[in-house]
Amino acid sequence: MNTKQDQLPTPSQSQQSQNDFTKISVGIVGGTGYTGVELVRLLVRHSAAEIKVLTSRTEAGTRVDAMFPSLRGLTDIEFSGNAADELAECDVVFFATPHGVAMNQARELLAHDVKVIDLAADFRLQDTAEFEKWYGMPHACPDLLAESVYGLPEINREKIKSARIIGNPGCYPTTVQLGLLPLIQSEQKLFDPASIIVDAKSGVSGAGRKAEVGILFSEAGDNLKAYAVKGHRHHPEIVQGLNAMRGGQAVATAFDKLTFVPHLVPMIRGMLSTIYVRLTEAGCAADLQTLFEQQYQNEPFVDVMPFGSLPETRSVRGSNHLRIALHRPNNGDLLVILVIQDNLVKGAAGQAVQNMNLMFGLPESMGLDVVPLLP
Amino acid sequence: MNTKQDQLPTPSQSQQSQNDFTKISVGIVGGTGYTGVELVRLLVRHSAAEIKVLTSRTEAGTRVDAMFPSLRGLTDIEFSGNAADELAECDVVFFATPHGVAMNQARELLAHDVKVIDLAADFRLQDTAEFEKWYGMPHACPDLLAESVYGLPEINREKIKSARIIGNPGCYPTTVQLGLLPLIQSEQKLFDPASIIVDAKSGVSGAGRKAEVGILFSEAGDNLKAYAVKGHRHHPEIVQGLNAMRGGQAVATAFDKLTFVPHLVPMIRGMLSTIYVRLTEAGCAADLQTLFEQQYQNEPFVDVMPFGSLPETRSVRGSNHLRIALHRPNNGDLLVILVIQDNLVKGAAGQAVQNMNLMFGLPESMGLDVVPLLP
Amino acid sequence: MNTKQDQLPTPSQSQQSQNDFTKISVGIVGGTGYTGVELVRLLVRHSAAEIKVLTSRTEAGTRVDAMFPSLRGLTDIEFSGNAADELAECDVVFFATPHGVAMNQARELLAHDVKVIDLAADFRLQDTAEFEKWYGMPHACPDLLAESVYGLPEINREKIKSARIIGNPGCYPTTVQLGLLPLIQSEQKLFDPASIIVDAKSGVSGAGRKAEVGILFSEAGDNLKAYAVKGHRHHPEIVQGLNAMRGGQAVATAFDKLTFVPHLVPMIRGMLSTIYVRLTEAGCAADLQTLFEQQYQNEPFVDVMPFGSLPETRSVRGSNHLRIALHRPNNGDLLVILVIQDNLVKGAAGQAVQNMNLMFGLPESMGLDVVPLLP
Amino acid sequence: MNTKQDQLPTPSQSQQSQNDFTKISVGIVGGTGYTGVELVRLLVRHSAAEIKVLTSRTEAGTRVDAMFPSLRGLTDIEFSGNAADELAECDVVFFATPHGVAMNQARELLAHDVKVIDLAADFRLQDTAEFEKWYGMPHACPDLLAESVYGLPEINREKIKSARIIGNPGCYPTTVQLGLLPLIQSEQKLFDPASIIVDAKSGVSGAGRKAEVGILFSEAGDNLKAYAVKGHRHHPEIVQGLNAMRGGQAVATAFDKLTFVPHLVPMIRGMLSTIYVRLTEAGCAADLQTLFEQQYQNEPFVDVMPFGSLPETRSVRGSNHLRIALHRPNNGDLLVILVIQDNLVKGAAGQAVQNMNLMFGLPESMGLDVVPLLP
Repeated sequence: MNTKQDQLPTPSQSQQSQNDFTKISVGIVGGTGYTGVELVRLLVRHSAAEIKVLTSRTEAGTRVDAMFPSLRGLTDIEFSGNAADELAECDVVFFATPHGVAMNQARELLAHDVKVIDLAADFRLQDTAEFEKWYGMPHACPDLLAESVYGLPEINREKIKSARIIGNPGCYPTTVQLGLLPLIQSEQKLFDPASIIVDAKSGVSGAGRKAEVGILFSEAGDNLKAYAVKGHRHHPEIVQGLNAMRGGQAVATAFDKLTFVPHLVPMIRGMLSTIYVRLTEAGCAADLQTLFEQQYQNEPFVDVMPFGSLPETRSVRGSNHLRIALHRPNNGDLLVILVIQDNLVKGAAGQAVQNMNLMFGLPESMGLDVVPLLP
Repeated sequence: MNTKQDQLPTPSQSQQSQNDFTKISVGIVGGTGYTGVELVRLLVRHSAAEIKVLTSRTEAGTRVDAMFPSLRGLTDIEFSGNAADELAECDVVFFATPHGVAMNQARELLAHDVKVIDLAADFRLQDTAEFEKWYGMPHACPDLLAESVYGLPEINREKIKSARIIGNPGCYPTTVQLGLLPLIQSEQKLFDPASIIVDAKSGVSGAGRKAEVGILFSEAGDNLKAYAVKGHRHHPEIVQGLNAMRGGQAVATAFDKLTFVPHLVPMIRGMLSTIYVRLTEAGCAADLQTLFEQQYQNEPFVDVMPFGSLPETRSVRGSNHLRIALHRPNNGDLLVILVIQDNLVKGAAGQAVQNMNLMFGLPESMGLDVVPLLP
Repeated sequence: MNTKQDQLPTPSQSQQSQNDFTKISVGIVGGTGYTGVELVRLLVRHSAAEIKVLTSRTEAGTRVDAMFPSLRGLTDIEFSGNAADELAECDVVFFATPHGVAMNQARELLAHDVKVIDLAADFRLQDTAEFEKWYGMPHACPDLLAESVYGLPEINREKIKSARIIGNPGCYPTTVQLGLLPLIQSEQKLFDPASIIVDAKSGVSGAGRKAEVGILFSEAGDNLKAYAVKGHRHHPEIVQGLNAMRGGQAVATAFDKLTFVPHLVPMIRGMLSTIYVRLTEAGCAADLQTLFEQQYQNEPFVDVMPFGSLPETRSVRGSNHLRIALHRPNNGDLLVILVIQDNLVKGAAGQAVQNMNLMFGLPESMGLDVVPLLP
Repeated sequence: MNTKQDQLPTPSQSQQSQNDFTKISVGIVGGTGYTGVELVRLLVRHSAAEIKVLTSRTEAGTRVDAMFPSLRGLTDIEFSGNAADELAECDVVFFATPHGVAMNQARELLAHDVKVIDLAADFRLQDTAEFEKWYGMPHACPDLLAESVYGLPEINREKIKSARIIGNPGCYPTTVQLGLLPLIQSEQKLFDPASIIVDAKSGVSGAGRKAEVGILFSEAGDNLKAYAVKGHRHHPEIVQGLNAMRGGQAVATAFDKLTFVPHLVPMIRGMLSTIYVRLTEAGCAADLQTLFEQQYQNEPFVDVMPFGSLPETRSVRGSNHLRIALHRPNNGDLLVILVIQDNLVKGAAGQAVQNMNLMFGLPESMGLDVVPLLP
């Protein structure tokens, strides 16, 4: 017997009366990584959600604020080890785990009416062959994958509201998809789909909280390099997303040609994607600034800056905002789209909370009203 | 005619009914520096205060979010140039200016029933000769200085509540005073007052947002140095504060011997003071951990960590918390007190908001419930 | 009367017998900036050159090792103020000054048989209209500009050997020109000249040692942004350089279309240019790796890494080396050329010393055998 | 039969005729850590030594310049796995390994007339009980330990010249011993030996090139903390060194009281020890600046800066220099001694090369003439 449905607000009720309801009970699987602790940072201040379970294979019994003293005074929760039962009693479970974990636990959770938001890649790629190619394992639940919704609210908001399983987007794909969405959704052919180049730059936290030599302070500090130029797992995710915007038209081969070159930048948080596309004549003639502004005018977390702006990553440090600025050097046919975000927030945990809010009929920005930390 | 009194909550009313009142109207003089923009960061989310005036001599007419895009979508306020009239209509004015500005404008503001919180040094040192020695200018209003209250809530909470003028403490002095308060206020003589050594370390933002070569990225980055060993303006402030704790006893000469060596650390925010004191026999025998915990048990922003903890500055990044940990290496007679804070928050703007809350009878933590940003 | 000629080695003699001669006497105008102190770092260990004059308007009388203690024990030279006479007695004078200084002093120095190496832009752009457009001042000596040689040894080595005036290349242009040289000099049409996109990233020292807010530690640290997207002074320099490689062919309009987007990266030294070009069919069929390796096989400072390598900036920290790696993602028609250097060495002072060595018939690498500092 | 002795210069010959001899053949055990690659950086430019063997358990067969591309073009040496035979043919073997490796291989090497320089701790502590306490293993060769020499040239130069085994000092102990040596060796009792406080700060490379979470960029960056306050392995090493300076006098208990608090600073290289001692009356009256200058006047790598200087770590970045500055705040009885070095050079590999030079009768500075890299 499961009575959670009774306790939870239905979407239509929530905005008026959420305070009358029990808070959403949240489970987080994998709370020791950066996306995990970032979820905790956001959720301890969320007025309609409460973390009930936080798991870690290695840290069971440790209080989370012993590991992350930034949380002292904010929560007394401990990491749990095997917590299948507690997770099954949650309303929603976030997976802040390595790839391959969520897809093996999702079915059981769904059976208990627990919604699932996976911050790893298990529910991002609809093509299981692509998934297996890039992640080195067969997909454990293709049927659930088919049901899952790609959690980019600016594109899939309505589907997210009724989803049971969310594949939370990768950090790079969030910037590229939101940077190109207005152009691709336009009824005009504004640019050459084979021309896209994404020169992306990420802070080191994007590599996770893993004991690896390459991301040591003395290795990644005062240093810059490109990486994964031969192929990055986010490439197929980006291509899938761009194709989806076109709505079934057979243009896959064109977006497939997208070039994606990520770089590792000596900063903790922050991501900047510099996107280059060749405009068509129609694109050169169009008012692209207005196109972008209209696309995002009601979006709470997408900020289209004035034409020619130079967004800096610190302007979103710690917040769920993503900022976009357009440039056309020398008024030529090359459009330069600058997109910034905090890779751990809009690029991961913040977007996941945004998805949770949508799934539970809460105000989309709830718990996400953090003012960016500058300097 | 000034009707602000009518609109504002009296202290006794505020906790019950603040939402029924007009928000406190706030002026900030000097909004382009780090303490100024930090005030804006905190106040745009404050539920009982609203920034009405923000001045800058050099940026009049510029929107603050054009200069600090982190504030886009949060405020549309512009910098004002000469704004004496608007400031006079505020309930409280913060001075986030160079030393010497507040003392020349305070009298006029007080005459209009505007409370003043100075984040510079004009109202810190009660001894005007000391002020003149260290700040190179005579004090403009000794009578107001005498009236002013040193804004360290953990020591002067009651006085702050009824103050018209607050001298907001310096960043280093906040750490040292709170690190030593329990020892000095003890009825026992726990340590040798002539033995205090403060080896302090600050992030670069403590030097302000000034165009100076020494704090360029390429100068201060990947580098460490001591500075101002010959004498630092915070030394007399610390000594004054420690003497005040003793309550008039003639021990000034002893605290005068305090050694203070600040260091510049290649990080943006964060301050760590490593304080060394020689314990007396009574001090060696005392339960110092309990002494500290009891002193601060009801303080919302002082966290006494378990004995032997190693606080790190990032655990308070962006928050108003200050954390203390005690150590006695080899159980010897030297007590090591580690104190961390964010120099721009508890060390400056956050403490100023805490003071404002007290002055207006608001909950002391209002607007200061930021979860530290880690990583 | 000038007798320097007698004391100096002629190029043909130098390699055999340089130790028998008086060292080259060197003047540096503008020794307090990063390129100036970098020249000092390299030249104090140079076995055939000696710094005789080091000027600074603001620091006259100060010992250089008082300002830069890294030089303690290595030189006792003081900054001079007005040092026209001493400079006239040097064999070579480097200008590590703002743009516009060298062109006003060059004629006088040449009249005294002093060679001139300008690290600023006065002798980079042969088109004086372009110079005036980008640097905001008319050119003071078009005749000397016409005589001057663009100091990129890998392209102009022979001309440099007999030059009297060198325009030392900009940092970004060095990476772009050396990254594209083999392709452009090929007899085959390997790529579309209109397709070049340079996504360039520089450490903060590239902005100089100037008291500016934007390059403060607390502004540029833990932050990333693009800048000068609307137009950067290095753009015309790059285009001029690429056109020169083609000989007199009328392809200027194509290279004019080059897109150049620089970014400011939170590291002190280091530059990475990620260059994208569309290959022709011939380009796709060609063995580009071999083409690059052959082009640079005898170059002492250009390192063509194995195909698909990921050069990191720290691998040249402090050294005059520039490293190139080629990539063709998915074997498509887009060539990605990664080029790294230390912006202060191969991008400035090191290249200037390399030019000096060539001008005076010294071994090209003399004084430049620094092992990169890693980590 | 071993004929190396014949090929090598004797100390008396070396300065005149080193070029006539075969270079010293060097082995390095453990070449993948920071002290290992730092040895390589220094030795590839050493004119009288040549690396013949470089071992790594994990990287056997890899070229060192594939792992550290900063060495491309400078060496083609590969990591060896089990290389006991090749090591036995070297003239000297450096151990840049974890603690406990050198002491198990030293006897075999000595049997082949190979000198041993251990950069780990196996030959630092003469008291084997202390060694076992701090390093958690019994000492494998107490007899060799008794024979070994503590490799601090400024104290043990003569012994080092004839040593077969060197225990290369720890990084912190180098700064503390050199910072206190003139005071302790004075015939006067200048300070209270029980009063020493060392507040030490190290860059992150001091923690080694190990895959550990605590030294990740995103953990150690923009952060500061004290660590190992309860006890650090360098404490007994410092105490031993200070006692040795006193020459057998029974003052051990006093130096035992030394307080040592290390801090982890977000920079790659660099170490600053801020040392506090209480002066006696004699100490207050003495000319300490002259005392220090005379002590180190002939030392090639110790720089006593003018009284009241503020040394910064970048002033020795990459070099073997250590700089000292004295302060007496307010002319009181507390002496503040600021000592800086590059932890990987004078604090490790550079000092090891300095020891090698002494052991083989080479000029002490050979191969160590690197100009510090600033900025």
